[in-house]
Amino acid sequence: MTAEKLVQFRERIRTELDRVVDFWLKHSLDKEFGGFFTCIGKDGKVYDDLKYVWLQGRQVWMYCRLYRTMERFHRPEILEAALSGGEFLQKFAWVPSAGSSGKCAFCLTRDGKAVKVQRTIFSECFYVMALDELSRVTGDVKMQAEAERVMELVVRWARGDSAGLGRPVLPGDAPVNGMAVPMMVLCLVEQMTEGRAEQYSDLADWCVQEILQHIQRDGTAILENVSKEGKELPGCQGRLQNPGHALEAGWFLLKHAVGRGQRELEVTAVNTFMELPFRQGWDPQYGGLFYFLDVDGHCPTQLEWSMKLWWPHCEALIAFLMAYAHTREPRLLEGFTQVYEYTFSHFPDAEHGEWFGYLTQQGSVALDFKGGPFKGFFHVPRCLFMCERLLDGLLDQPCDP
Amino acid sequence: MTAEKLVQFRERIRTELDRVVDFWLKHSLDKEFGGFFTCIGKDGKVYDDLKYVWLQGRQVWMYCRLYRTMERFHRPEILEAALSGGEFLQKFAWVPSAGSSGKCAFCLTRDGKAVKVQRTIFSECFYVMALDELSRVTGDVKMQAEAERVMELVVRWARGDSAGLGRPVLPGDAPVNGMAVPMMVLCLVEQMTEGRAEQYSDLADWCVQEILQHIQRDGTAILENVSKEGKELPGCQGRLQNPGHALEAGWFLLKHAVGRGQRELEVTAVNTFMELPFRQGWDPQYGGLFYFLDVDGHCPTQLEWSMKLWWPHCEALIAFLMAYAHTREPRLLEGFTQVYEYTFSHFPDAEHGEWFGYLTQQGSVALDFKGGPFKGFFHVPRCLFMCERLLDGLLDQPCDP
Repeated sequence: MTAEKLVQFRERIRTELDRVVDFWLKHSLDKEFGGFFTCIGKDGKVYDDLKYVWLQGRQVWMYCRLYRTMERFHRPEILEAALSGGEFLQKFAWVPSAGSSGKCAFCLTRDGKAVKVQRTIFSECFYVMALDELSRVTGDVKMQAEAERVMELVVRWARGDSAGLGRPVLPGDAPVNGMAVPMMVLCLVEQMTEGRAEQYSDLADWCVQEILQHIQRDGTAILENVSKEGKELPGCQGRLQNPGHALEAGWFLLKHAVGRGQRELEVTAVNTFMELPFRQGWDPQYGGLFYFLDVDGHCPTQLEWSMKLWWPHCEALIAFLMAYAHTREPRLLEGFTQVYEYTFSHFPDAEHGEWFGYLTQQGSVALDFKGGPFKGFFHVPRCLFMCERLLDGLLDQPCDP
Repeated sequence: MTAEKLVQFRERIRTELDRVVDFWLKHSLDKEFGGFFTCIGKDGKVYDDLKYVWLQGRQVWMYCRLYRTMERFHRPEILEAALSGGEFLQKFAWVPSAGSSGKCAFCLTRDGKAVKVQRTIFSECFYVMALDELSRVTGDVKMQAEAERVMELVVRWARGDSAGLGRPVLPGDAPVNGMAVPMMVLCLVEQMTEGRAEQYSDLADWCVQEILQHIQRDGTAILENVSKEGKELPGCQGRLQNPGHALEAGWFLLKHAVGRGQRELEVTAVNTFMELPFRQGWDPQYGGLFYFLDVDGHCPTQLEWSMKLWWPHCEALIAFLMAYAHTREPRLLEGFTQVYEYTFSHFPDAEHGEWFGYLTQQGSVALDFKGGPFKGFFHVPRCLFMCERLLDGLLDQPCDP
């Protein structure tokens, strides 16, 4: 019974992954200037040619990961696409004059001129992810060294010396521990350490501790922003919840904990970073995960708070399936099934392929493009890729404890 | 028949204005630290105590304008509120270390510590508006001089020497003529020149020319961003339309043109900045004005593009009533009536007073607070105040040509 369901899930997921890879290979490559178009309409037409570094880096990473680890994607056109993106990033993403020691641009023109530099760490993080993963495919040691060089900067900024980001110091702007930073750095640690000699283990512990600080109110809530001392912050910022982000942190933590046999952390990851935000973040009326919530029930000030976005659903699918694969608790497969049913009945576009990204609270398509400034070739294929692998594992070892 | 309708409009608008003024006097004053709370929930409760300088400045301006020009608001508690806001701004808004010659903060803590400084001109603009209007009430010449000092900076930044804003120069970030800048500066010119010897007239001409550059595609579209040479820009940025903003520009231009007897500009203001964006921006399915559109019909990338916000409707009411008062063209009163009916049946909260700010495309309340980081005591009362005055004029001179 369960096995039959798992086979059905895998069949659909595998088909979707193939369609999504095809969509981006067909519409996204910039054959003239290199790199990728990511502003891609419903039907595949490019509606803007700006190149967002987050999305360029993520797309390189995703192509390499598929090429490197999945037989059917070990194809020359996927490697070529990754190489084109990597070359574009190495040529254009780095802006030496930004910040105090250089920064990556957030956005570039089609031909690689910097348009905007953000005063955060994320462009650099996706740059590191892309170059490290690409170096694993090509064996390019100089590229790996470049990834490590920028990784050092990211770690320095993240762990407190943020002056290099170029943000002015203001007396009312107390430092905040936002969940995105330790999550992202933990993700980089996983990236940089896979199959290599032990390193960054202090850093990983720091990330985990910073993420755990977001458990607040006696374990009854995950809050997106806390103080540097791990206390609740006043106002909207302090009360903000982002259920999809908590679920993503959940599977980052679970993966990390399983890799190190940290049993207590495994339980926290599943109970507190998956099941809790899922219960609180699921819309009882229309289904789907809210984008933002206020822990005290005030209306969030983000205009899009009640919209249903594709990526929290992607993260929830990975989280529940990973948790089920690890524990074999039926309730976790039920969680996966609930998210799966909402996701596959709302987001994929049967006509043109790929997924819609932005639905109204009620579940109709609010923005109909397939790629935009924040939606590229990343959350959907990463989710499908990871779920397919997890299902392979489950179906290979049906009786695993 | 028309007069009867106008009387009904005035009755409702006058009642609403009284309720809105009461709401903010009751819930918004910070008696401990001065200035205003602006994050105010549905029922009047403060849900965050950050102080946004745009909103502090606008609230001071609005109180002073009501106090100075409307008999029934010439009340000590309104003056006291304005003085409290003005004192807070003068004590805390200016951040000498920001930019190259100081800047206003965008956001302050409750007790006045700077949290964030934006690299745009708008905090400074609302600071100038507030202090100039307050100085007109109190006769404080030092305050007026401070307004003029910052006005000079704003003009320098706006007219091309934007280095002082602190934005890095990037090769792909070509300067853009965004509609907000010349509109805002034109609004300041009106503020600073009322009843004073002729000044800033070159500046006013510059603003008008910059605004007129946004008429594109042979007069068939108002675009929000154009090049410094007045040409259409590529991509989403170039195709962006903001109908409420165009309508607001419309009444700024009409007021300016009428004051100077510029007949051709009057016609452009009404036809091209009011009727055209109203036709294009009105949602034929659910009514109300869209927040953003793409001139070629692509889906905008702003998540909130299809939402119905309060302020575009406020600006449309002022625009159509001003245009009707000036021309007495029945079609303009019809436009006003159409916006009026949507607005008054959707935005006001009969239970707790004030207006909701953010509706779904379908017209239900999406965010239920009365004040937030971008909604304060400004668009609603300015609209009601101006419409009441325009209706007074129309009813006093029913046969005016």
